[in-house]
Amino acid sequence: MAEIGNYKITSECGKARCGVLTTAHGEVQTPIFMPVGTKATVKAMLPEELTDIGFQILLGNTYHLHIRPGEKLIKDLGGLHKFMNWDKPILTDSGGFQVFSLSKLRTITEEGVTFRSHIDGAKLYITPEKSMEIQMDLGSDIIMAFDECIPHPASESDIEKSSNMTWRWLKRCKDAMTKKDSLLFGIVQGGLEEKSRLKSMDQICSVDLPGYALGGFSVGEPIHMMHELVEKVAHKMPKEKPRYLMGVGTPLDLILSIDSGVDMFDCVMPTRVARNGTMYTWQGKVAIKQAKYKTDPNPLDPECDCYTCTNYSKAYLRHLFNTGEILSGRLNTIHNLYFYNKLIEKSRAAIADGTWPEFKQDCVTRFTKTVS
Amino acid sequence: MAEIGNYKITSECGKARCGVLTTAHGEVQTPIFMPVGTKATVKAMLPEELTDIGFQILLGNTYHLHIRPGEKLIKDLGGLHKFMNWDKPILTDSGGFQVFSLSKLRTITEEGVTFRSHIDGAKLYITPEKSMEIQMDLGSDIIMAFDECIPHPASESDIEKSSNMTWRWLKRCKDAMTKKDSLLFGIVQGGLEEKSRLKSMDQICSVDLPGYALGGFSVGEPIHMMHELVEKVAHKMPKEKPRYLMGVGTPLDLILSIDSGVDMFDCVMPTRVARNGTMYTWQGKVAIKQAKYKTDPNPLDPECDCYTCTNYSKAYLRHLFNTGEILSGRLNTIHNLYFYNKLIEKSRAAIADGTWPEFKQDCVTRFTKTVS
Repeated sequence: MAEIGNYKITSECGKARCGVLTTAHGEVQTPIFMPVGTKATVKAMLPEELTDIGFQILLGNTYHLHIRPGEKLIKDLGGLHKFMNWDKPILTDSGGFQVFSLSKLRTITEEGVTFRSHIDGAKLYITPEKSMEIQMDLGSDIIMAFDECIPHPASESDIEKSSNMTWRWLKRCKDAMTKKDSLLFGIVQGGLEEKSRLKSMDQICSVDLPGYALGGFSVGEPIHMMHELVEKVAHKMPKEKPRYLMGVGTPLDLILSIDSGVDMFDCVMPTRVARNGTMYTWQGKVAIKQAKYKTDPNPLDPECDCYTCTNYSKAYLRHLFNTGEILSGRLNTIHNLYFYNKLIEKSRAAIADGTWPEFKQDCVTRFTKTVS
Repeated sequence: MAEIGNYKITSECGKARCGVLTTAHGEVQTPIFMPVGTKATVKAMLPEELTDIGFQILLGNTYHLHIRPGEKLIKDLGGLHKFMNWDKPILTDSGGFQVFSLSKLRTITEEGVTFRSHIDGAKLYITPEKSMEIQMDLGSDIIMAFDECIPHPASESDIEKSSNMTWRWLKRCKDAMTKKDSLLFGIVQGGLEEKSRLKSMDQICSVDLPGYALGGFSVGEPIHMMHELVEKVAHKMPKEKPRYLMGVGTPLDLILSIDSGVDMFDCVMPTRVARNGTMYTWQGKVAIKQAKYKTDPNPLDPECDCYTCTNYSKAYLRHLFNTGEILSGRLNTIHNLYFYNKLIEKSRAAIADGTWPEFKQDCVTRFTKTVS
């Protein structure tokens, strides 16, 4: 295994590329999709089921774990890997996004953010140093810098002020990062204008780090704005470092972003919509509650060989969903995560063998239609 | 494999006994505990996980499956085994117990029962013949007779009238049972007095059938009344046929009933209380939400080698329960079902090697104390 933090590009096809990132808990092949294990569990799934599907790395949420059960408890019990029975790499976000999207009554100063817990209203205070401390206590392999995530729309001067502070915070994060086998990734902000994004990118990427992310998306902007901006800026991030597009997205978002040179993704989408009865298939999206599936003896996706599609009919999945059974969330989640991982595996294969343009086009055609 | 319906006693120790019942989907070793798969799923569990634990037979609920998704749909899709991906034996209850415990505005006549669905208030009508038809459509291996389940307390004359009707209904059930590879079990009623129970037993067991059950428990009576009555009457049921105590019970109930000569059990207890955070262990019951488990690095049960106890701490199980994670229900259910099956496996072994009295006494001591 290469040195921790090493990122080796193994193949390229246009702006899309494959690589291998080395972490303290093993290697990660990129492009990669990371399932979200918000509260030390990927909802409805056992760690072994994630490994069986083929996932190589999970995401944990600093904000949620800080509130419950608390990073000190997790540290005392041997760290997040041991706590949740997952021995492969873990990336934790910085808490920044949740502080801005979930918490109440937040006050932002140069020093840090004061806010109230969305659970019990308790007053909490996170600084860049505190975020690093929490993530180090959790024992993350990849630690995200603490950034300010401003809503859309925002004025040019607000975006600039915010980006500047995110830059200063990044330098404080780097100084506070004392865990040698964890990798700190910086987060590019700068709103939805190319110019301000590139300015933030210059700032963030001037700090030497093992990886960089694009943050501040999924804040209410139209999706085409994200696609256009990612296409313009992702490939300008340091070529020799992994590029992570945070909190994104749908199968179509993944394909378009890989095409723009992005390497890493995370999103609650496949797990969340599964529990709500929506599944991604190679024929488009399926809403399983629809009456037309009531007596349907066929698998959810005839092109899929996941456990769910191999063993159950759409009629059974609809019955489980309509009766509110726990198994509904399980079987639907298994399918969606399998689908996401397969999409990523096929992407890697297509990049490696030079058929990426055809594969991408086929995916775009498939994912812009919806079965139901 | 012996002929379908064959029941062979393989060992005895006092009134406790081991046996093998042959069904169309394979053999079942008794004593046996059947997990309850109310709506074509044992809540939170995959069929393969049940097999891995060691379960040999499941119970499905006729009442629930009749209402949703309907037995005709299940029949058209190849039967309940295929629908829910379970190729081992299935026993279905008759719907009687749920008609009396869940439904509204029921009217009982000699012909059958008219009632309203607890889901949508739809008017439904079940007769002994209809119950047989539903269970045959489901494709059950063991079909329970349609009986009247009267509440406790009831007058002697009401009990006698009810028992007499249950007997007449049984004869109609037998006449309506045309599926050759399914086994019809009769249900002894008769309330909580020994005399009326024995009278019902004489009636029910005068109909030649491959198995007999004790019904009408868990209707609000004090638990010691059940234990005392089962001790008096269970061993008087036909010795050469399996004896099934319906809807029972706790680990202590199982041990005491096996000691009284009962062979088969089903109960929602292990799965239901698991989802509410209560687990059975070899040291007694554990309520995982208790504050004392907050930082506890130990497994739930140091004497248990189930998946949950092998891989997770009490602190993690408490965290999952307190945050309402789906994985909480899964891990807790895995443990409780494993515990129930292990209890039954150990019972079979103790009966076979003649150490049943010591094993029974050890269990009684353990299960009459509670950890928390």
